[in-house]
Amino acid sequence: MRKVSELGERKVIQAIINCLDKMPEMPIPFGDDLSAVKIGKNALAVVKTDMLVGKTDVPPGMSLRQAARKAVVMNVSDFAAKGVKPLAALVSLGLPKNFDEENIRQIGLGLNEGAREYEAYIIGGDTGEASDLVISCSLFGLCEKQILVKRSTAKPGDIVAVTGEFGKTAAGLKILLEKLDVPEGIRRPLTEAVFWPKARLKEGITLAEAGFLSSSIDSSDGLAWSLHELSVASNVGFKIDFVPLASEALELARLFNLNPLDLGLYGGEEYELVVTVKRELWDKAKKAMESLGGKLIRIGEVVGEKKLIVKIDGETTPIEPKGWEHFKS
Amino acid sequence: MRKVSELGERKVIQAIINCLDKMPEMPIPFGDDLSAVKIGKNALAVVKTDMLVGKTDVPPGMSLRQAARKAVVMNVSDFAAKGVKPLAALVSLGLPKNFDEENIRQIGLGLNEGAREYEAYIIGGDTGEASDLVISCSLFGLCEKQILVKRSTAKPGDIVAVTGEFGKTAAGLKILLEKLDVPEGIRRPLTEAVFWPKARLKEGITLAEAGFLSSSIDSSDGLAWSLHELSVASNVGFKIDFVPLASEALELARLFNLNPLDLGLYGGEEYELVVTVKRELWDKAKKAMESLGGKLIRIGEVVGEKKLIVKIDGETTPIEPKGWEHFKS
Repeated sequence: MRKVSELGERKVIQAIINCLDKMPEMPIPFGDDLSAVKIGKNALAVVKTDMLVGKTDVPPGMSLRQAARKAVVMNVSDFAAKGVKPLAALVSLGLPKNFDEENIRQIGLGLNEGAREYEAYIIGGDTGEASDLVISCSLFGLCEKQILVKRSTAKPGDIVAVTGEFGKTAAGLKILLEKLDVPEGIRRPLTEAVFWPKARLKEGITLAEAGFLSSSIDSSDGLAWSLHELSVASNVGFKIDFVPLASEALELARLFNLNPLDLGLYGGEEYELVVTVKRELWDKAKKAMESLGGKLIRIGEVVGEKKLIVKIDGETTPIEPKGWEHFKS
Repeated sequence: MRKVSELGERKVIQAIINCLDKMPEMPIPFGDDLSAVKIGKNALAVVKTDMLVGKTDVPPGMSLRQAARKAVVMNVSDFAAKGVKPLAALVSLGLPKNFDEENIRQIGLGLNEGAREYEAYIIGGDTGEASDLVISCSLFGLCEKQILVKRSTAKPGDIVAVTGEFGKTAAGLKILLEKLDVPEGIRRPLTEAVFWPKARLKEGITLAEAGFLSSSIDSSDGLAWSLHELSVASNVGFKIDFVPLASEALELARLFNLNPLDLGLYGGEEYELVVTVKRELWDKAKKAMESLGGKLIRIGEVVGEKKLIVKIDGETTPIEPKGWEHFKS
């Protein structure tokens, strides 16, 4: 019988889903970024839970305050991907017995920051003793049924785009985990990307409300994995011709002789949105993002054949279905 | 600086709350059984999270399936106390790396059972590696504002009542934790009470919808603690003249020379409702419970003086503010 370490997170989730009775008229299928309950003719209550565990999700150097903030922000990012504004959060805290009052205060401050940055509030929770630090955050919001952008509705011909550059957190994590000796000028922006992730909530809501998107997901498990998820859910392929990389990530790749494309494609804990945009709406969508002070960067297009490739400088490489996964990583 | 083991669960929660910005117009104050968000003129979205940790919340002999079911049921019990029907649940699972496929299946089956017994569905979740088994369940429901029964509205003169007998789970836990050698005829019902807790959802909804209750709480931290919580929230006292004890708990007390009142008052993990009923509605409330096949047992009355006593056979004893508490227990 296989252990969870062999199964990996995604097969564990599937094994649980196999045991569950499915809610009738489930507005969002299992496995999308959010879950929802129909609460009126066109109204959905939207919920999401995501758990941060100290030993696997908190890299060396990250403070408790940052970890607690991140536990909220990673949930907000899923709301961003669907275009839903989060209203309130609950937090379950598993705390090691040796944590003290100041540790608790730092966690409280971080939770509040994570919520308030996105205009949500922490409204309740629970706590208990655990061997590891565990911060399980559940987020709640409301939306109109037609606003919510699924993973399953990308169409061939649509433009694939992202809301920012990639590679920073993969590079930052590498610095932290492998204790790399790196000049401060690139260490700081790369590690800050790990310590202070930002969710693209404003961007996601604007894009969804204007009806620009045909599908959307966040890149929390890496750009490659996000594309694979969209590909499976929408039954399409992707031809990527540009992977926007942060200059600091490029510099780290140069210094340590790393493949920059790997940093961009196969990282994780990066909270950009990966979206598909109806071609005729592209200019408008791009302008809407720019007027927000954000970015919408074209990286390729949706194709009918269910194949994922990146073609840069005439060289074609397949995009592997890999990314950050609990238990396996 | 004090550690969480000295602070105890309640002070840890207060320390977190002290860091939080309070949502304006919060329909239920921090610290009640549920949290809520106003979603319409009279409509509330109701949410609750409660976390089960293997090493502190799963007694020896309890299966994974039972533990997973209990993780849902303990949340349902809080909905029962407020009279709200749960609709959907999210589950965050922290799993030790050595868990196998069958362990996962048992957890999935237990989660589904816990939800379906109360007509709710599991609609999403998350999983990750943790040193302990962690099952954090978040429950969602809807209710009209006026239905929801708070802790803070008990009035002197109201009748205090409970929905069932006490002492079974305290006795059952004692058998399991101390490996007591007990005749099967009482071992079974007492340990089953621990393994298969039931939430009084039907009872809570009926009592709340009919407007019978002036306040309500569940007894998950023990009857004594529930009364103390109601006392603090409502600024009243309680004169208890009867603590209904399960016959099997009485028998265990006789066999092992235990104080049966202690089993009834200071147990925990017992999911009866502890309610106050407007005196003029008592007969109707009691009949409504009986026609449901349930019970409503009068145990005393609310008094103006903020003092908690139990007076049985002419002897008066104070009810101590103690009960099950994480970190300390």
